[in-house]
Amino acid sequence: MSQVYSSLNPSEILRQKRDGQELSAEQWKQFIQDYTSSKIADYQMSALLMAGFINGLSSKETAALTDAMLYSGDVLDFGDTPTIDKHSTGGVGDKTSFILAPLASACGVHVPMMAGRGLGHTGGTIDKIESIKGFKVDLPLDEFKKQVIEEKLCLIGQTSQIAPADKKIYALRDVTATVESIPFITASIMSKKLAEGASGIVMDVKTGNGAFMAKKSDAKALAKSLIKTAKRFDKKMLAFITDMSQPLGTHIGNSLEMIESIETLKNKGPKDLTQLSLKLAGAMIFLAGKAKTKESGTKKAKKVLESGAALEEFRKLIKLQGGDVAVIDDYSKFPLATHKTIVKASKTGQVHSFKTRAIGLHCVELGGGRKISSDSIDHAVGLVVHKKIGDKVKEGENLVTIYHHKKQQSLAEQIAKSLTENDILIKKSVSKIPELVWEVLS
Amino acid sequence: MSQVYSSLNPSEILRQKRDGQELSAEQWKQFIQDYTSSKIADYQMSALLMAGFINGLSSKETAALTDAMLYSGDVLDFGDTPTIDKHSTGGVGDKTSFILAPLASACGVHVPMMAGRGLGHTGGTIDKIESIKGFKVDLPLDEFKKQVIEEKLCLIGQTSQIAPADKKIYALRDVTATVESIPFITASIMSKKLAEGASGIVMDVKTGNGAFMAKKSDAKALAKSLIKTAKRFDKKMLAFITDMSQPLGTHIGNSLEMIESIETLKNKGPKDLTQLSLKLAGAMIFLAGKAKTKESGTKKAKKVLESGAALEEFRKLIKLQGGDVAVIDDYSKFPLATHKTIVKASKTGQVHSFKTRAIGLHCVELGGGRKISSDSIDHAVGLVVHKKIGDKVKEGENLVTIYHHKKQQSLAEQIAKSLTENDILIKKSVSKIPELVWEVLS
Repeated sequence: MSQVYSSLNPSEILRQKRDGQELSAEQWKQFIQDYTSSKIADYQMSALLMAGFINGLSSKETAALTDAMLYSGDVLDFGDTPTIDKHSTGGVGDKTSFILAPLASACGVHVPMMAGRGLGHTGGTIDKIESIKGFKVDLPLDEFKKQVIEEKLCLIGQTSQIAPADKKIYALRDVTATVESIPFITASIMSKKLAEGASGIVMDVKTGNGAFMAKKSDAKALAKSLIKTAKRFDKKMLAFITDMSQPLGTHIGNSLEMIESIETLKNKGPKDLTQLSLKLAGAMIFLAGKAKTKESGTKKAKKVLESGAALEEFRKLIKLQGGDVAVIDDYSKFPLATHKTIVKASKTGQVHSFKTRAIGLHCVELGGGRKISSDSIDHAVGLVVHKKIGDKVKEGENLVTIYHHKKQQSLAEQIAKSLTENDILIKKSVSKIPELVWEVLS
Repeated sequence: MSQVYSSLNPSEILRQKRDGQELSAEQWKQFIQDYTSSKIADYQMSALLMAGFINGLSSKETAALTDAMLYSGDVLDFGDTPTIDKHSTGGVGDKTSFILAPLASACGVHVPMMAGRGLGHTGGTIDKIESIKGFKVDLPLDEFKKQVIEEKLCLIGQTSQIAPADKKIYALRDVTATVESIPFITASIMSKKLAEGASGIVMDVKTGNGAFMAKKSDAKALAKSLIKTAKRFDKKMLAFITDMSQPLGTHIGNSLEMIESIETLKNKGPKDLTQLSLKLAGAMIFLAGKAKTKESGTKKAKKVLESGAALEEFRKLIKLQGGDVAVIDDYSKFPLATHKTIVKASKTGQVHSFKTRAIGLHCVELGGGRKISSDSIDHAVGLVVHKKIGDKVKEGENLVTIYHHKKQQSLAEQIAKSLTENDILIKKSVSKIPELVWEVLS
């Protein structure tokens, strides 16, 4: 007859979060567990997400949510082998993974890379690597583990065994306007990264108009939240706040970004991409205990870049995972669109700014990314920007090259128009060039 | 290629409400329309409900939501016939509808009553009237309209043609901890009442530990919100804030409440129930233009109560809707449990207070209400309280009679124990007796 009051009742949990109360670790665990097993419906989860978005989560709650999501699936354990992972919050032209992972492994670091596909206006590591014919991204977890321990380097896609709660919750956040929440982003990133078993993580938190966190203050708050959560789980972390107010490097699009990555591993890449990759790899080398400071880690990374050892690591990775190693010496092995539309500068001056997100969306529009999750990817299309912020430019000089298929001529022209009229601003002179790395937090 | 920014996009609407912005009438309309037609999923609606619960709705938004829900189904129109409806926010033992509707119609008021079933710890008008054998509550809307115009009085259950959006949203609010929101309660009540076509409405907003709005300040805020919304729709309204810190009248349970209602129409009812029914009926008579003030309306109601005219109106209503009129003169025609357990006072003193909600839940537990919506109702069970707040009581004197079936003996004893030990407090002396009507707002 008596109605037993239970703090674990979904309605009671919703009521408490709605009223701004802090939920206990047990409450988060029960709710996430029941949602993952479909005992709790989407409509109750979305109500909790909205309440959490608006009222916020304490750092204790963020850790509890991370923990609940982390243990919703398998948790990898590399035993005595220290492993260092890297995660970027995403941007346009961000292909550092392909460069820093070989740099770090060439310096003796074990790098377990479990990467995602493209999201919104940003490309995905897994989509890009699949430009290499035959490269297998769906190795079973035991093979992944074995390769990381024995060969130091492995790159696979996210599997449904790792943090399945995150996958389910992320899909719901995407359609309920609850994405841009620092506690939720923290729990999403950290639950996956912790489940992947790395002992240390280098975070690249992007900020600027091509990043998910456009404002620097938001990026910094996210970095702090990530570090706080990492500490609660006894993981080493360094978080870089880096610039995403223009594309990173010059190439955008799947095959194009692989080509640029290989060029960079040959030490012929653009300065910004090379520098950032060296800095992030340096931090990984330091976290792995292979250098006394991140700066000396960067020096070690520079050596293996210059010696060609890093390039050989990348060649080995491709071979190990069944990919065509010929791409390294022959870029024609990459699928690449044969038609090019060249966008020329409409005036003389200096490049002042990019609408970076718009440029990412142009690549999606060409087929280089997905509008809905069931879309397939066209690895052949993309854009190459020939000028970056601060670069001098003359009227009529090449600004951007669009790689597209023949049937996309009118789309390419529309994109060209948007680029000159809206997306790349040229001014007489430019005084401020954005820093590549704004800050490093630990 | 261009992504057209649309303020009517569900995600954009969610984002705006999440960030505390005011939604436009068009946005509410589109969202509710798409939800009713299942273009918008439950998980998006529940996210909007949670955002609206936490961030609130302006009175403009409340009206827009009401309007959107109102036009999700049919809207009745009684043409030139002015009609006055009454709505109670619900309580324990609240059976005023059966008394005030005949009082008002006997004074020439057309009363279209579309009533609900029991909810939580409270009983429902439709469940109660079904204690009368044969009484049809599911008349088609055109018959309902005809009977109101020609016979002045009709009582039916809520149909799915009236405000279907409200039905769908209410079910979702119930499981997402978004019930106790003044804007949502306002829109829910007003969308139904406006769709039912009344030209004026008397609101009975209950407050106290047996009401959904326990705090007087919340009840008053709801009353104000209802009046504001009524004004926007050009409807006359009087809102009574009335006491629900003890059961209204003495009988709780379906048949028992019908018997008490008929007794009251015979002018032999308890004082509180009689007084409140007269006051509410007086307000209806006033709003219908049949009296100059609500007080003179109450005087008119008193006359038709004393003359027996109201009782004859009720007899006519039962007959019109196919019910057994014999119940009026022979209460044995009501299904009533034959077993009684009498609860006696454990000490001498004065009744200090009731746990009114608990008493309502005892009736549900006996089968007089539903725990889940698919439960069937037992009209035969219930409770009669013999003492009210302020009444003197001697140790061993009868306090409550529980009507139950033979097989429910042990349940009845559990209830008896709860009543004496927890639910009815007797103190040496009582200084404060709650007002029946706290305030009337217009």
